[in-house]
Amino acid sequence: MPKGPGSAKRGIPTKEDFNAWYPAIVEIADLVDKRYPIKGMDVWKPYGWSAMGHIDTLVRTEMRNTDHDEYNFPLLVPHDLLDKENKLVQTLKMAREQGVDPSELRIEEEIGGFEKEVYWVKHAGEHDLDVPMFLRPTSETPMYTMFSLWIRSHADLPLKTFQIVNTFRYETKQTRSFIRVREIHFFEAHTAHADQSGADAQIDEDSDIVRRLLHDLCLPAIISRRPVWDTFPGAWYTNAVDAIMPNGRTLQIASYHHYRDQWARAFDITYEGADGSQSNCHQTTFGMSERLLGAVVGVHGDDAGLIMPPSIAPIQVVVMPVAAHLDEAVEPQASTIVERLKKSGIRARLDSRDMRPGAKHYDWEIKGVPLRIEIGPRDLSSDSFVMTLRTGGKDSHPIDVLEEIVSKSLEGVSTELRARSSNLMESKMAVLQSLPQKPSDLDEGMVYEVAFDGNDADAEKLEKSTNLTLLGDLLEPYEAPRICIITGKETLRRQHLARMY
Amino acid sequence: MPKGPGSAKRGIPTKEDFNAWYPAIVEIADLVDKRYPIKGMDVWKPYGWSAMGHIDTLVRTEMRNTDHDEYNFPLLVPHDLLDKENKLVQTLKMAREQGVDPSELRIEEEIGGFEKEVYWVKHAGEHDLDVPMFLRPTSETPMYTMFSLWIRSHADLPLKTFQIVNTFRYETKQTRSFIRVREIHFFEAHTAHADQSGADAQIDEDSDIVRRLLHDLCLPAIISRRPVWDTFPGAWYTNAVDAIMPNGRTLQIASYHHYRDQWARAFDITYEGADGSQSNCHQTTFGMSERLLGAVVGVHGDDAGLIMPPSIAPIQVVVMPVAAHLDEAVEPQASTIVERLKKSGIRARLDSRDMRPGAKHYDWEIKGVPLRIEIGPRDLSSDSFVMTLRTGGKDSHPIDVLEEIVSKSLEGVSTELRARSSNLMESKMAVLQSLPQKPSDLDEGMVYEVAFDGNDADAEKLEKSTNLTLLGDLLEPYEAPRICIITGKETLRRQHLARMY
Repeated sequence: MPKGPGSAKRGIPTKEDFNAWYPAIVEIADLVDKRYPIKGMDVWKPYGWSAMGHIDTLVRTEMRNTDHDEYNFPLLVPHDLLDKENKLVQTLKMAREQGVDPSELRIEEEIGGFEKEVYWVKHAGEHDLDVPMFLRPTSETPMYTMFSLWIRSHADLPLKTFQIVNTFRYETKQTRSFIRVREIHFFEAHTAHADQSGADAQIDEDSDIVRRLLHDLCLPAIISRRPVWDTFPGAWYTNAVDAIMPNGRTLQIASYHHYRDQWARAFDITYEGADGSQSNCHQTTFGMSERLLGAVVGVHGDDAGLIMPPSIAPIQVVVMPVAAHLDEAVEPQASTIVERLKKSGIRARLDSRDMRPGAKHYDWEIKGVPLRIEIGPRDLSSDSFVMTLRTGGKDSHPIDVLEEIVSKSLEGVSTELRARSSNLMESKMAVLQSLPQKPSDLDEGMVYEVAFDGNDADAEKLEKSTNLTLLGDLLEPYEAPRICIITGKETLRRQHLARMY
Repeated sequence: MPKGPGSAKRGIPTKEDFNAWYPAIVEIADLVDKRYPIKGMDVWKPYGWSAMGHIDTLVRTEMRNTDHDEYNFPLLVPHDLLDKENKLVQTLKMAREQGVDPSELRIEEEIGGFEKEVYWVKHAGEHDLDVPMFLRPTSETPMYTMFSLWIRSHADLPLKTFQIVNTFRYETKQTRSFIRVREIHFFEAHTAHADQSGADAQIDEDSDIVRRLLHDLCLPAIISRRPVWDTFPGAWYTNAVDAIMPNGRTLQIASYHHYRDQWARAFDITYEGADGSQSNCHQTTFGMSERLLGAVVGVHGDDAGLIMPPSIAPIQVVVMPVAAHLDEAVEPQASTIVERLKKSGIRARLDSRDMRPGAKHYDWEIKGVPLRIEIGPRDLSSDSFVMTLRTGGKDSHPIDVLEEIVSKSLEGVSTELRARSSNLMESKMAVLQSLPQKPSDLDEGMVYEVAFDGNDADAEKLEKSTNLTLLGDLLEPYEAPRICIITGKETLRRQHLARMY
């Protein structure tokens, strides 16, 4: 594996070789330890867990600002609750017989599939359980069982809930830290509304929340309505958020689903209206996971290690005394700087380890700390400090304006990361005007934009010809009509083809 | 079931009938919903989850202040890792043959018992797993497997870790919210030290942490060194913290264990000293759980509902506009009060629901909000506000000193709760001078202090005669010798007998 400039001694592959860089950096930067003896279940180290905790805090703040309440549901789900989901299948079958929207038709094939992906608990102590249980992959079943008890009248609506919990999936594909794991640190919001328009408004709110989070994490993304066949079971439609990783593969980092009243019919979630009538609720869900951290690691890092967006950096500023043995005022000054920064709400850490400054730099560079401050005898005498940005640049500043400069510089790092990640994304995207003769004629590691308005069979043809997957309709269609790559008809539908994680 | 004054209409049993009051109040106050279809796995409602979150925050702050780092280990434990624990049993057997401290001898009987109390995962998807796994009851096995990889040299010590996670126990006894559940919200700290004195110092630190937490939660407790036969498997000794509930039963709300090097020998946790020699670490653990919330609910509540200690109250102050239809300045003033309180770091909530004030009071009383502020036209004209303490007392105060009065009053509620809970504890304790003729001669619902210095057989006799359980040696022994209740010999050992949860 090729090494980057100066990175040979560090054992970090160059980022150009992303498939080697990513699994190496998550351990070298001390985010996780993969040596736990179950594949796909990593140990979260303090630095990784802290970064994830800051992501959770951003999410919780968004939830609080939009009047969602935090719950915590049991991990174990009795298998017989799934009878309700089977009832969903029945409902959908009946719907098909009455000739409805094809979006409702593919669900029944998929809903059975989920049982192949769960961990089962059939024994406890020395007993066989009467009813087998499984570890939640997501929480529709446990939550909606309770929703049907909680929702009685229109006054109970909207019900806006979320939880941040561990979920489980028996992955048979190759696992990757944060990206494809078997124990997942998971966020899920579930809402219930009086009617479709209430759920529509929730989808809009979810969309706004996702955009704000992406801004905080300095990540650009493609937001699409997934094709019918990639719709979540029981959903009317699914919107999904895909980041583009440096190898050109897309990573789904969030999805939000409009259920209409399909799950409510299966779970008997009804309410009495002001006029005394009974109706089913309309529902939505919104899911995100530790993949957000995976995208942060993959998109922002460089040959020297991670680069943490300031919003989630466990340490935003590290302060290092330099040549402290030459002047006994150096250490106290470094401490004072840390205290001043903490006081103004900045996550600062003093590094007074007895090590060469170069070795310290190297440590904090790998960990992606946005700002490094050095303070030595010369800085003391000039009432200044030297600050280095992880994204590049080093300067001396007067100590008087410490807090102001640090705040501005953190904002500067965020802005720079947003510019870099947008450039990265653009460099990985191209427009596909016509089908390639064979899939290998396409540039590997690219995401292709296409005008596409075909049916299922057309989509299959398109995917086969490119060996890529359709992400679905971009939420912003074309403004002027284009020619569909398969049918040749005019269309505004703007879609993307990608190799997905 | 008897009802308290004014509580008949609320459906809350009187607290005198504690065994009816407790299970009722946890649902009426909206802490949990027990209707989830697995016994002992409650759904945490937002109010309960928020209170628990504030307890977690207190714990995390203590951990950070004492240089513990937060990790997150996988939930699933492969069964074959237990071979290490069996090695522990071997180690202990050998130790016995060499004639060691009897504290090491009872462990082997117990260590097998734990397999009877876990949930097993033997199937995933449609596959039988090669190696069965279990849901962690606690994390010694997964953690120490990793510790043996992480600890290499004396420079890696002390290693101070903790996590807050869900753990599982297949309870066969009757379950009770927070007190005896099958999915447990659990805190566990695990540390490794170079030698026994390092671990000794950790035990002292744990003891200090527990005392500070008890102070924050306004809970008194008995802290004892458990008898050898109640020592945690693999521990040299166990210190346990017992609260006394209003029915006189004790509830173990924390325990901390000195392992010496017993687990380290089983898990090969060794380090190289400065002189190049290899040694086993000495270890400690410290565990607490949602039982802390159970003790808060049980000890502080009254006939009218919960009383939340301000340190963990999800809402510390509720502000209610009164007769707002008579003066349009009332609502804005109520909002201003909430904003001012929030600004000074107080958890305040506006209740502007269109309901009778009496019904609102009733709601917040059940939920145990420490302070209620009312603001009506008359208060506006006198530049004042009316404040009611959940622990009793109602007064008008000038609006100028809002923040100061509220802070003082929150402190006042805490002080009052500490006084009440100490009185409760004292009222439930008595000294046992001599054995009763038969157990039923003792007052039911009392904890008895005894001077006791007997052996195993003496303890069995004592427990049989009283039908109570020995909690162990109080950390503060008698200052002057007493007569042992069984042997008649003089002793300083001060112990307690109780009916434990």
